[in-house]
Amino acid sequence: MTALTLAEKILSRAAGRPLRAGDFAEVSPDRCFTPDDAIDTIIALLAQAGIERVAEPDKLGLFYDHFAPPATAELATVHTGGRRFVADQGIAEFHDVGAGISHQIAVEKGLARPGTLVFNADSHTTTLGAAACFGTGLGASETAYVWATGRMWLRMPTTIRIRLDGRLPAGCEAKDVALALLYRYGARLATYRAVEFVGDALSELDMAARMTLCNMAVEQGAKAAMVPCDAVTEAHFAALGIDIEPDAGRPDPGAVYEREVRLDLAELTPMIACPPTVDNVRPLAEVAGIRIDQALIGSCTNGRLEDIRAAAAVLAGRRLAPGVRMIVTPASRHVMQQALREGLMTTLADAGCTITPPGCGACAGLHLGALGDGEVCIATTSRNFTGRMGSRTAEIYLAGAASVAASAAAGVITDPASLPPGPIRSTI
Amino acid sequence: MTALTLAEKILSRAAGRPLRAGDFAEVSPDRCFTPDDAIDTIIALLAQAGIERVAEPDKLGLFYDHFAPPATAELATVHTGGRRFVADQGIAEFHDVGAGISHQIAVEKGLARPGTLVFNADSHTTTLGAAACFGTGLGASETAYVWATGRMWLRMPTTIRIRLDGRLPAGCEAKDVALALLYRYGARLATYRAVEFVGDALSELDMAARMTLCNMAVEQGAKAAMVPCDAVTEAHFAALGIDIEPDAGRPDPGAVYEREVRLDLAELTPMIACPPTVDNVRPLAEVAGIRIDQALIGSCTNGRLEDIRAAAAVLAGRRLAPGVRMIVTPASRHVMQQALREGLMTTLADAGCTITPPGCGACAGLHLGALGDGEVCIATTSRNFTGRMGSRTAEIYLAGAASVAASAAAGVITDPASLPPGPIRSTI
Repeated sequence: MTALTLAEKILSRAAGRPLRAGDFAEVSPDRCFTPDDAIDTIIALLAQAGIERVAEPDKLGLFYDHFAPPATAELATVHTGGRRFVADQGIAEFHDVGAGISHQIAVEKGLARPGTLVFNADSHTTTLGAAACFGTGLGASETAYVWATGRMWLRMPTTIRIRLDGRLPAGCEAKDVALALLYRYGARLATYRAVEFVGDALSELDMAARMTLCNMAVEQGAKAAMVPCDAVTEAHFAALGIDIEPDAGRPDPGAVYEREVRLDLAELTPMIACPPTVDNVRPLAEVAGIRIDQALIGSCTNGRLEDIRAAAAVLAGRRLAPGVRMIVTPASRHVMQQALREGLMTTLADAGCTITPPGCGACAGLHLGALGDGEVCIATTSRNFTGRMGSRTAEIYLAGAASVAASAAAGVITDPASLPPGPIRSTI
Repeated sequence: MTALTLAEKILSRAAGRPLRAGDFAEVSPDRCFTPDDAIDTIIALLAQAGIERVAEPDKLGLFYDHFAPPATAELATVHTGGRRFVADQGIAEFHDVGAGISHQIAVEKGLARPGTLVFNADSHTTTLGAAACFGTGLGASETAYVWATGRMWLRMPTTIRIRLDGRLPAGCEAKDVALALLYRYGARLATYRAVEFVGDALSELDMAARMTLCNMAVEQGAKAAMVPCDAVTEAHFAALGIDIEPDAGRPDPGAVYEREVRLDLAELTPMIACPPTVDNVRPLAEVAGIRIDQALIGSCTNGRLEDIRAAAAVLAGRRLAPGVRMIVTPASRHVMQQALREGLMTTLADAGCTITPPGCGACAGLHLGALGDGEVCIATTSRNFTGRMGSRTAEIYLAGAASVAASAAAGVITDPASLPPGPIRSTI
């Protein structure tokens, strides 16, 4: 038998027959989710097609993250329609206003498991690859098709490997790794390819870091991006009390890859993606000094406890620069609860930050901190395209949490290492 | 000289001549504010009138509370325009995204002082009467006129007294007093009248309670509603380090009132205003059992630390009923910081509540928890008119914080006293 990459292994299982790169196949996903912003389309399409019952409600999920809590009666009514639909259909996973981002919840609760295939009507579903899961985004109409039939066609992608070696220097984060990959290899490195992250560096990259890497891989075009199962993955599921088959989350020895690229983490410095494209990346030091209006910690890319800790460490005892707003949007209720319990939200509120409910927040420009004309924002989010976070004349810079917090403290884009020493952190 | 009510005293001073009820007069306010939702109109009207400089920037203020953080580029651009305007004009008070509600900040920071006249382009400016200040709402165009000229005309209202006697029973709050006044005297008790709250009960009603009473007086039509200066007022300003003239915040002995009504607080039980009018009030027990979808703690009526404490006391160790959402919107950053420091936000998040940034929140249906078609909400807010919080088919019940929290725990409208005993509160 041919040795398979992790993607080939997962999709062959989902197709019920061995697949090779380039094959078209119908697959049965293990789960298929949607955020709130596609649910009304899905319900309408199912009704239009005369589908009265979804095929496999146990596999489906609905997450209220893109506009929760809603700002308008129209969006609130999309929510009420979704609630009724999941109750009527017996859909297994429903996460209402305040629960957080689908991808974050899927990893936190172990819905994304090694060796499984998960669809979601959201492009950042690649995030689930942190759990050695083939997560990939669908459009709303494709998602409706899966909800109706339990199946979807796809073309088997080729797989590339991204080898990460060396140790991440202090002051650098997983986001800097993702930005460095964009800097070196551009936004098309992985177009319709599956990515496997490998290398010595992984043993020191926790689940949060892996989620950031897999999340940002879609910005390089990846159909899916996975960290094969290892001790970190196993510890994650052990903590959740979920039994997994580690082997299902690993490629076969001897599998063939289209290409391998490498990055030595030890060489990194903080990186930043400049407007208006995610691969317009530069070492942050090169653009230090650019004035900002808003700073944002949040999103499925970097709204985790680790990011909030990094921001709080920078801002402890400090105040935001005059004229700068900083918004902190936890990725999930669990993240919010942990950040509250650790006193991080107190630290951030005392610094002048505005803490929002868990969810996608301002990342997609739909909510909780959209940008006005001519504004400049530095964000931990994943996309900086023109108009992404609101006004088409606003500019978005993408960086890691420490860089965002340091910039908010200084009022200009700032390398955390160059921020003048902070005060001693007061006891809460 | 004629003995003057507090309203007559304040407006006569602001007019520079003695005023009697019914007189039309031009007055110079001590301060004139606007929330974000009127600033673009004000700027446009001033430009249209060729006014290049506001008359008295030291007296003016802008507060971002109605849609902060903004959900759209258009609203964000209203914010950027306002920021530029206050900077260009040297306007004294500017409170950006995350600071909270104008009325809350005005009292917290001592901008509302005894014996002074404060305008604000928001109807709940009567809240400032807690500080013995004549606070009243203006329309956006009137506010623009004040910003241009420093003056505004008005008709001197008559004054009525509301006498509050007795001690509030455990389980009742200031909101129940306000609702009881609406129950007994209707929504027209104080139409274009000034209200003075007097009576033995006041010595046990703190600033937060007074703010709730003065806030809700506008729902009975009041032009202004004030608690004359007393030891509570003096302690409030002493804590702020602000010297006041207590006499300026007191009516003259022997002043003549149009009418006096009374309420014995000892007779109260929890009250609730049923849809669709604020004076459709009933004892809460009479409507207990009605199913709710959303519960809301917040607004200038009841988004203070005292309200959040009351909600947390009910929900400590409990969980929201299945299918119920509860939103907590602190009235100001200061309230948020205190609630974080006291662990209340941890308690509420653990119970399943969604904590939003400080501001007006969902109260006006513009933000952070609008209601969808057919939904039922119980809220600590001030208004339950059709469509107020979003959909025109949603229904809003108004009650105090403990009643709202108890209802969220039970899933149906519930008197806090009838909620089954809660678990022992765990240490945070």
